[in-house]
Amino acid sequence: MFGYVSALEIFRFKGLSRSHEMTSHPIPVRAPVQKRSQRTYDRLAGAILAAANDGSLSTLTLPRLAQRAGVSTGAFYGRFASKEAAVRDVLDRQTTAFVSRLSLLGAQHRPGRDVRGWIAAVTREFDDHARAITSLVRVLITTGAALPASAAHSPALRREAAALLTEWGVVQARQSERRAGFVLELVEAMTRDAALSNRRVDHADIEMAALWYLSAP
Amino acid sequence: MFGYVSALEIFRFKGLSRSHEMTSHPIPVRAPVQKRSQRTYDRLAGAILAAANDGSLSTLTLPRLAQRAGVSTGAFYGRFASKEAAVRDVLDRQTTAFVSRLSLLGAQHRPGRDVRGWIAAVTREFDDHARAITSLVRVLITTGAALPASAAHSPALRREAAALLTEWGVVQARQSERRAGFVLELVEAMTRDAALSNRRVDHADIEMAALWYLSAP
Repeated sequence: MFGYVSALEIFRFKGLSRSHEMTSHPIPVRAPVQKRSQRTYDRLAGAILAAANDGSLSTLTLPRLAQRAGVSTGAFYGRFASKEAAVRDVLDRQTTAFVSRLSLLGAQHRPGRDVRGWIAAVTREFDDHARAITSLVRVLITTGAALPASAAHSPALRREAAALLTEWGVVQARQSERRAGFVLELVEAMTRDAALSNRRVDHADIEMAALWYLSAP
Repeated sequence: MFGYVSALEIFRFKGLSRSHEMTSHPIPVRAPVQKRSQRTYDRLAGAILAAANDGSLSTLTLPRLAQRAGVSTGAFYGRFASKEAAVRDVLDRQTTAFVSRLSLLGAQHRPGRDVRGWIAAVTREFDDHARAITSLVRVLITTGAALPASAAHSPALRREAAALLTEWGVVQARQSERRAGFVLELVEAMTRDAALSNRRVDHADIEMAALWYLSAP
């Protein structure tokens, strides 16, 4: 068994924060054990995303943000220590969901052995994700923090990609982790940089660069 | 004549702002016509860089920043409309100087026809530059602006790199602008993303990816 899911589970339970080499202070994330708690979280996350997108997040006070979410200020503090912690948490969850999607993509493409198709799909996912989180990332940078968790640096995802490329015979086993890891970094960096610059990237070029890098002897 | 300098001059005089596809508001830059004016500018630029590096720039008021620079608040406003304008100006000048260095690198490597050596040197320059301006970039993002001017998108620099690669026989003339441009974007994105993430990038991988992308048929 190749074990996509199990690798992902390890990644999840060992904590995404492991891959936050740029998180200066770990944010405790409470698991929503009750329905009401989950609803409160969803409302807060929705209000944070909406405020990030309309540009008001950096100036909104915490009570005002809670009001927009339709929850009490107390409920907000019950979930998060600060606005920054809330932003970081929403970003972390989006990244976790994103890593799951990438993992699923690998599983879906595995039987087809189509490296080009897989890289194209991975590039689209990275680009969509980078665009979706850009406004939150800006707010995070504002607080002095660095970029959010890098999916490309997730050890489980790198291992999965390396196993896929080895199985397909695209790279040699001894080079697979480095090659797979770098390709993920390349796609991530180019899509993040473009999203922060309000620019579009050419997927065809990214895919070509990734394929040729992988096929190098 | 290949005309590195002339291409650079065109880039300069047509205005670096042409390549600021992400600058929402052009900042007028006054040429320092007098020595005293140049000294004032240098002091302000030095104070801005120092404040960005020690993390105080986002909270420093403009009069306090002028005080640190040893100039009057009036002298500051004589040069810049706002703190943001000053940051943008310092960044623009650093980018202009950076583009000049890249252009010079091309001229220096031209006789040697060493594409590998040139790419390695370009990667080092991009990485050094990305690290040098990261704290200023963070402040800029804080103001809601996007990343600063992309050197990789400078039309003159792309043309120079394309001419170099064509002359060396690395790429075909009809593909040269696209290939050269993408290689510059790749190196820039990977070094900028790493700098913002407080991470180191592996130059050897970047160089390998660039070389293989260029050598693709």
